[in-house]
Amino acid sequence: MPRKMEGEMLKPMDAEQLREFGHQMVDFVADYYKTIENFPVLSQVQPGYLRELVPSSPPVHPESLQDVLDDVRTKILQGVTHWQSPGYFAYFPSNSSTAGFLGEMLSAGLNIVGFSWISCPAATELEMIVLDWLAKLLNLPDTFLFSGEGGGVIQGTASEAVLVVLLAARDRMLKKLGKDSLGKLVVYSSDQAHSSVQKACQIAGIYPENLRILKTDPSTEYALSPKAFSEAISQDIASGLTPLLLSATVGTTSSTAIDPLPDLGKITKSNGIWFHVDAAYAGSACICPEYRHYIDGVEEADSFNMNAHKWFLTNFDCSALWVKDKKALIQSLSTYPEYLRNKASEANTVVDYKDWQIPLGRRFRSLKLWMVLRLYGQDGLQSYIRNHISLAKNFEELLVQDSRFEVVTPRKFSLVCFRLLPPANHQHEGDKLNRELLDAVNSTGTIFISHTVLSGKYVLRLAVGAPLTEEKHIKAACETLQQKATLLLKAF
Amino acid sequence: MPRKMEGEMLKPMDAEQLREFGHQMVDFVADYYKTIENFPVLSQVQPGYLRELVPSSPPVHPESLQDVLDDVRTKILQGVTHWQSPGYFAYFPSNSSTAGFLGEMLSAGLNIVGFSWISCPAATELEMIVLDWLAKLLNLPDTFLFSGEGGGVIQGTASEAVLVVLLAARDRMLKKLGKDSLGKLVVYSSDQAHSSVQKACQIAGIYPENLRILKTDPSTEYALSPKAFSEAISQDIASGLTPLLLSATVGTTSSTAIDPLPDLGKITKSNGIWFHVDAAYAGSACICPEYRHYIDGVEEADSFNMNAHKWFLTNFDCSALWVKDKKALIQSLSTYPEYLRNKASEANTVVDYKDWQIPLGRRFRSLKLWMVLRLYGQDGLQSYIRNHISLAKNFEELLVQDSRFEVVTPRKFSLVCFRLLPPANHQHEGDKLNRELLDAVNSTGTIFISHTVLSGKYVLRLAVGAPLTEEKHIKAACETLQQKATLLLKAF
Repeated sequence: MPRKMEGEMLKPMDAEQLREFGHQMVDFVADYYKTIENFPVLSQVQPGYLRELVPSSPPVHPESLQDVLDDVRTKILQGVTHWQSPGYFAYFPSNSSTAGFLGEMLSAGLNIVGFSWISCPAATELEMIVLDWLAKLLNLPDTFLFSGEGGGVIQGTASEAVLVVLLAARDRMLKKLGKDSLGKLVVYSSDQAHSSVQKACQIAGIYPENLRILKTDPSTEYALSPKAFSEAISQDIASGLTPLLLSATVGTTSSTAIDPLPDLGKITKSNGIWFHVDAAYAGSACICPEYRHYIDGVEEADSFNMNAHKWFLTNFDCSALWVKDKKALIQSLSTYPEYLRNKASEANTVVDYKDWQIPLGRRFRSLKLWMVLRLYGQDGLQSYIRNHISLAKNFEELLVQDSRFEVVTPRKFSLVCFRLLPPANHQHEGDKLNRELLDAVNSTGTIFISHTVLSGKYVLRLAVGAPLTEEKHIKAACETLQQKATLLLKAF
Repeated sequence: MPRKMEGEMLKPMDAEQLREFGHQMVDFVADYYKTIENFPVLSQVQPGYLRELVPSSPPVHPESLQDVLDDVRTKILQGVTHWQSPGYFAYFPSNSSTAGFLGEMLSAGLNIVGFSWISCPAATELEMIVLDWLAKLLNLPDTFLFSGEGGGVIQGTASEAVLVVLLAARDRMLKKLGKDSLGKLVVYSSDQAHSSVQKACQIAGIYPENLRILKTDPSTEYALSPKAFSEAISQDIASGLTPLLLSATVGTTSSTAIDPLPDLGKITKSNGIWFHVDAAYAGSACICPEYRHYIDGVEEADSFNMNAHKWFLTNFDCSALWVKDKKALIQSLSTYPEYLRNKASEANTVVDYKDWQIPLGRRFRSLKLWMVLRLYGQDGLQSYIRNHISLAKNFEELLVQDSRFEVVTPRKFSLVCFRLLPPANHQHEGDKLNRELLDAVNSTGTIFISHTVLSGKYVLRLAVGAPLTEEKHIKAACETLQQKATLLLKAF
């Protein structure tokens, strides 16, 4: 039983208090996972719910941990969307794990700030080592390893990954063309690329009309067509513009489409275009030999990104980025004020990760990735991926047995894109029907799925990837969909 | 005694395994704090030390937690610079606390991704509430609260805070001037401003020659002179340039100088310049009525930033940013892809913090700030700040009793800037002497201090701010400095 803190003032830091309350918090978190299925997966609260439940000012006097934990139970948890619930199938997963949780604890315990090597050598060196490890698991070319001109870095998110490489590419090009040429630079991606590409362009000042969003269609399973890419480049060059960067995707957010890296790589190479590969979600699967072919062609890329926090058992945030030319990154992002000068940096014998990222300060995030890699091992990680893909396959098989549903794009990994077919006399109401189905199943609290639009059609997405999901949850998800479909179709 | 994991395969997530190993990790972290003074504060390892101690590839099979923790003890900790050690006085503090640690645990346990309100309503709403709470503690004007047009947001770092407001200011101005006018925009700060201002300009594409770094000197205690600022503006306007943003600092990194906000605010207002106030370090002190006057004039600011992770008992990272015009932020940073569309966002009744920051995904960081505010209360937090300032005062008093040292700038908060005076016949070697003194004391392992340069002189900085620092550590720090000074002066 947790003890009241009353009478015992919490010190800023005290080993024995941290021990006592830390144990209470471990039990709280363990109990949460034990009872996670009791909560609606998607929070059912209304906007503004919490402000009515809490005071409008912070307390003058200290309160007890017991009171805070009671408030978490009675006020916070109802507003939580439970990403770790076995019924969570929305967006892409962002999985927690025991190892990842332990890594976060250790990182929070040490609470270092690793901007430069000197500010915490182990934080920098462990990050370099585990990024090399992960590159080897993914069978990335050696040119992405620290033994070459390249190297890896943990960014917070894939958004930051594409932003920093865009900045590196932008500045390298403007050095040649002159800084007045910003308005000439063109960035390419498919219409299936993540919104982070657009956001990176906004931040870097790429002119909106120079973000070339190339159309895809079902004929390529929503992959970017090298021909369309080539033609866009030619047209841009003819208009006096300068092709700058391509962000290709392996496993798009909408439907896990795979852009054809080998062919795209040839085109970027012959045109001097920075070739970025965003495998935020699907990168994890590529540690399995049977899926590795999806990133064939990565040899030609200038940068490659996968999110260990999505589907690699590493708690959010942990986005792994590798670049071949680390100098380009550093030239864009480096500052070196007097108060950070030190002998190790001056001797140029160390990596200062502050120059590889947007912020200055950084957490010791490599600890959790290191612990995941060691506590699960390559074997454990591969099993984890394969299990989810197999569960997604089960779901797909169950669903297509019900002829009222169709699978919209071929499933490649753990995402199934599907649609409830509208009745014959309501063909034009398919979108409305699926929108209603989405709301209906998400309101049950047993599952949370999300949606996208493909070729103008509203499509439902079920992504397997929560660490507790088992076959019974897949069956339950399918049943929930079928039950709600029956009700909706009756009302049509 | 921690149990071996052998024979028991670690599952991706399992409540009872998380409980068992979580308890082990709590004990590990508590023991770390118990023995933290046994470690040299500044790590004494050589570059590359860790690669020689670990395998070059990740393991194929899972390893035990015991093995991992052994490696933390024997391989990692020697490479850690112990930011939480009571002998840590370098840079600015980045303090851990029991409450902050518990908050990190809970956040890692829930492991949600709070990009939109819908993705975890409690994460968004608690953040809005605690930012309002903190604004009230700081007595910020109501215009920074959510009840007005403004609001607060947790950024990772002050670097991201200044970047997002610069982007908002840039895009608002370019909307008026046209996007070809980027080369006309001028950003102002003093030469004491943090390097993050320069970095934000690099990222946002502000021309390097249009970053106006205004010189300060001892006559204003290194504060920005409103006259110099006014003159720079006039000159820029006369040259056809457009003043865009001022980043003023309350508590500069080098010497905790205070830019005069009221006078600067008048100038920015009459010139339509975005007025950003960076109080990353000193902002925390302003919750004490006796220090609040240092941010008088914040009423005129467009944005205000303080780092709760520096000196507010909140574990890294947690940088609080308030803006008056949240729409300007959102207009710069918003994207709204189909797969994130939802009714709550569409109805415009909620905050989607993805549009207030660089990344898309975000952690549940408000939990730790909420727990800090509740478990320490306003009283506890004020005592914490006052205690550190009093310890810094003690240090200053001890030091000036030794006439070989001089205090270089008046101490305002918990930072003391000082210098060992060179012997009469070595006047020109003062910098060398202090550089050697820095290395000498940092090599002892008992303290870690850092340096800066003020008016061309190499100056040592001792910043009190680690949560375990007590009077005895202050005395020991002073003694270490004196002992090493004696040795160095002998050799001169």
